[in-house]
Amino acid sequence: MRQAPENFLTPEDIRQVGQGRRDFLRASFLTATAATVAATAGGRAAAAPAATTGIGDPDILNPTPWGSSLGQPVAATPYGLPSRHERGLVRRQSPGLTQVAAASVSFAPLQGLFGIITPSGLHFERHHQGWQDIDPTRHRFMIDGARPEFVKTPKVYTMDDILRLPPVSRMHFIECGANTGMEWGNVAVPTVQYTHGMLSCSEFTGVPLRTLLEDCGADLKAAKYVLAEGGDGSSMTRSIPIEPVLSGEVLVAYGQNGEMLRPENGYPLRLVVPGVQGVSWVKWLRRVEVGDRPYATKDEAVHYIDLMPDGQHRQYSSIQECKSVITTPSGGQTLMAKGYFTISGLAWSGRGKIKRVDVSVDGGVTWVEATLQTPILSKCLTRFSLPWSWDGQPALLQSRAIDETGFVQPGYGQLRAARGSRSIYHNNAIQTWQVAENGDVNNVQIL
Amino acid sequence: MRQAPENFLTPEDIRQVGQGRRDFLRASFLTATAATVAATAGGRAAAAPAATTGIGDPDILNPTPWGSSLGQPVAATPYGLPSRHERGLVRRQSPGLTQVAAASVSFAPLQGLFGIITPSGLHFERHHQGWQDIDPTRHRFMIDGARPEFVKTPKVYTMDDILRLPPVSRMHFIECGANTGMEWGNVAVPTVQYTHGMLSCSEFTGVPLRTLLEDCGADLKAAKYVLAEGGDGSSMTRSIPIEPVLSGEVLVAYGQNGEMLRPENGYPLRLVVPGVQGVSWVKWLRRVEVGDRPYATKDEAVHYIDLMPDGQHRQYSSIQECKSVITTPSGGQTLMAKGYFTISGLAWSGRGKIKRVDVSVDGGVTWVEATLQTPILSKCLTRFSLPWSWDGQPALLQSRAIDETGFVQPGYGQLRAARGSRSIYHNNAIQTWQVAENGDVNNVQIL
Repeated sequence: MRQAPENFLTPEDIRQVGQGRRDFLRASFLTATAATVAATAGGRAAAAPAATTGIGDPDILNPTPWGSSLGQPVAATPYGLPSRHERGLVRRQSPGLTQVAAASVSFAPLQGLFGIITPSGLHFERHHQGWQDIDPTRHRFMIDGARPEFVKTPKVYTMDDILRLPPVSRMHFIECGANTGMEWGNVAVPTVQYTHGMLSCSEFTGVPLRTLLEDCGADLKAAKYVLAEGGDGSSMTRSIPIEPVLSGEVLVAYGQNGEMLRPENGYPLRLVVPGVQGVSWVKWLRRVEVGDRPYATKDEAVHYIDLMPDGQHRQYSSIQECKSVITTPSGGQTLMAKGYFTISGLAWSGRGKIKRVDVSVDGGVTWVEATLQTPILSKCLTRFSLPWSWDGQPALLQSRAIDETGFVQPGYGQLRAARGSRSIYHNNAIQTWQVAENGDVNNVQIL
Repeated sequence: MRQAPENFLTPEDIRQVGQGRRDFLRASFLTATAATVAATAGGRAAAAPAATTGIGDPDILNPTPWGSSLGQPVAATPYGLPSRHERGLVRRQSPGLTQVAAASVSFAPLQGLFGIITPSGLHFERHHQGWQDIDPTRHRFMIDGARPEFVKTPKVYTMDDILRLPPVSRMHFIECGANTGMEWGNVAVPTVQYTHGMLSCSEFTGVPLRTLLEDCGADLKAAKYVLAEGGDGSSMTRSIPIEPVLSGEVLVAYGQNGEMLRPENGYPLRLVVPGVQGVSWVKWLRRVEVGDRPYATKDEAVHYIDLMPDGQHRQYSSIQECKSVITTPSGGQTLMAKGYFTISGLAWSGRGKIKRVDVSVDGGVTWVEATLQTPILSKCLTRFSLPWSWDGQPALLQSRAIDETGFVQPGYGQLRAARGSRSIYHNNAIQTWQVAENGDVNNVQIL
């Protein structure tokens, strides 16, 4: 990697942060008396710019209403909710994206999230015929075979049956294959909620599909694919290769972040297919059929395919390749003064663990390695961050992820050379946020 | 360890589960045609016992309302909520535990949770003067010194100031020092929600307190303790030893499970003191004072102290020692038939990582090592599980955790020998659930 540009903190500076020699940082604080990141686009609304003030600040001496009154009782909300002051941080639909809201998308507000866990209340949605709140006592899950010899004893399971089986819990990202899809043709949307918000990450709990197939006497040598079928009106059906089923990765899941799945995320059962595009994580799962070839269903023959430069369609390209995005600062936000900021974002790969994330503030001319938050888990979001002192000049912020297979996230030039410009799905290009001299952050594309 | 009793699956059996030779398990399924775990005490309500049925089950052929209708649109709930079918799974107050609900406890429904993340809406509560929904634009956080020379430049921070600083995210458990307190004198409560439900686990995001102390020019050589002060009416104040502050473990946190803290858990700021009892994780944090000795405040001189057998009080014993509990099956549930069950529970230690968990079904005569769910993180919940085939005879279920320091969770006999019977706090004894012949599970104590 090339040397860091001057307005980056050097690795030595970063080391000093940990050791207490933070004069450089303090200087940034003191000059940045009116600086903050304003999350104007559905994120946390920024307060009036406020300074780090000395002890003489009269505010601290005034009694507050919450320090001088009896508060609310415990279990006032037996199921708790966010503060009313956070009501702007919600998932949002893109008006006009689809004609029917039952067959549309809501985007997760990545610009306002921390760490790697997505609160279940902010998990993105993508439905093909709307979501249903299924009665779990009436839900059934069936396993059978495309030919009788593929499954010796086809079975129908109740939720109680499934809840008794040995569960596993694992943290994984889920990304819609169409995430960042509106950026294929041009720079389409202003904020990271809309460019990358079909992305979430949860601790999922369920039974390995392999356990259930074995319970039904499935022929795991003959099986090459399984067909997963959803119980909603769209009868979503997807072919899943047998390899991740045999390895135990694919789960018939009922739990998400410690509790049952949310209705809009497949309650009471969904498939979890780590690293693979969200459409294959079939929601309201009602059936798995064991087969020996892919099924070419509507949702994999007509949708979720990639139009290549030579005019051919690429099918079954379902693994979400290595990708990253800076979530702060990001489009729609404003840097309200020069000085210290934390550049922070998310990286992920459908092939395994994230190995490294580089950050550039000059549009990819020079790169600096970011700090990765631990634990770094396979096929899971990884949070990266890098201290940055903004000098007030225009900047082009980028992140570039590298996964444990050595795959390097491509720029738009590389992506278009391989894939053309007429795809909808599987856009994992490097995202650029342009910081203007006035602090405004905008979505731009660099080839 | 002694040999496993017969009704345990042997390690060889468990290995075979992973390898597909599951005839023993299938046999259990087929004989256990009406078996389920009924979470009758605030957990998931069990359905009418349902069998794993053959392909002839007519239910699977009937169209369901959710498979033949248009569902609800995306973002119908911009901030999502659990299914209406899960409305029984909530945090609950113990009637009569305290006279005023503003100075009481609500317990997390551990019997219905999966994995290690506690949904923020089910995080336990313990308030001393109720909870407040603080306006973050008006909240201030001050750092000063007990003597002027301890802090060169005392400062007052706004939330915007704190949100700009380099954040870290870490997963940790939080346990009230009084958790399981009602079990000191006798077997007091019937369910795990009430015996162990002052326990939760989240991904917390914040700024290391050390970063802020350095920013104020604190004398980290003179500092031996800091005093943390809450902004609610109770002015909760606790002394925190400087060591975990210097190591970077103690966070001034604003994030919980990806979003801002919930109001009842300290919004917009709380201290995170990994491994230490919850009362020290001061909520609605408004001030940290640097000092050279513990402060002996009301909440550490009169409350959260341990009455020892010799009549002395033990003070500042704030680290939550190694502990575990089986959450399924647990008190108030009913095993509705013989056959296969998964014994599952949680283990944790304020000293570091969990190394091993043993499970007994005969009241501690024999033990079998449980499987630990990865990742195993320091000062974080660890989920353990063990397959169990219930033979219909009375059983005494126990779990015993061992942490990376080699500390072994004590039985009640050992605990009482060291600590007497008159404490309220810091009960980490082995919990016993008695399974009766009719399948009822009850809370009992074994010395």
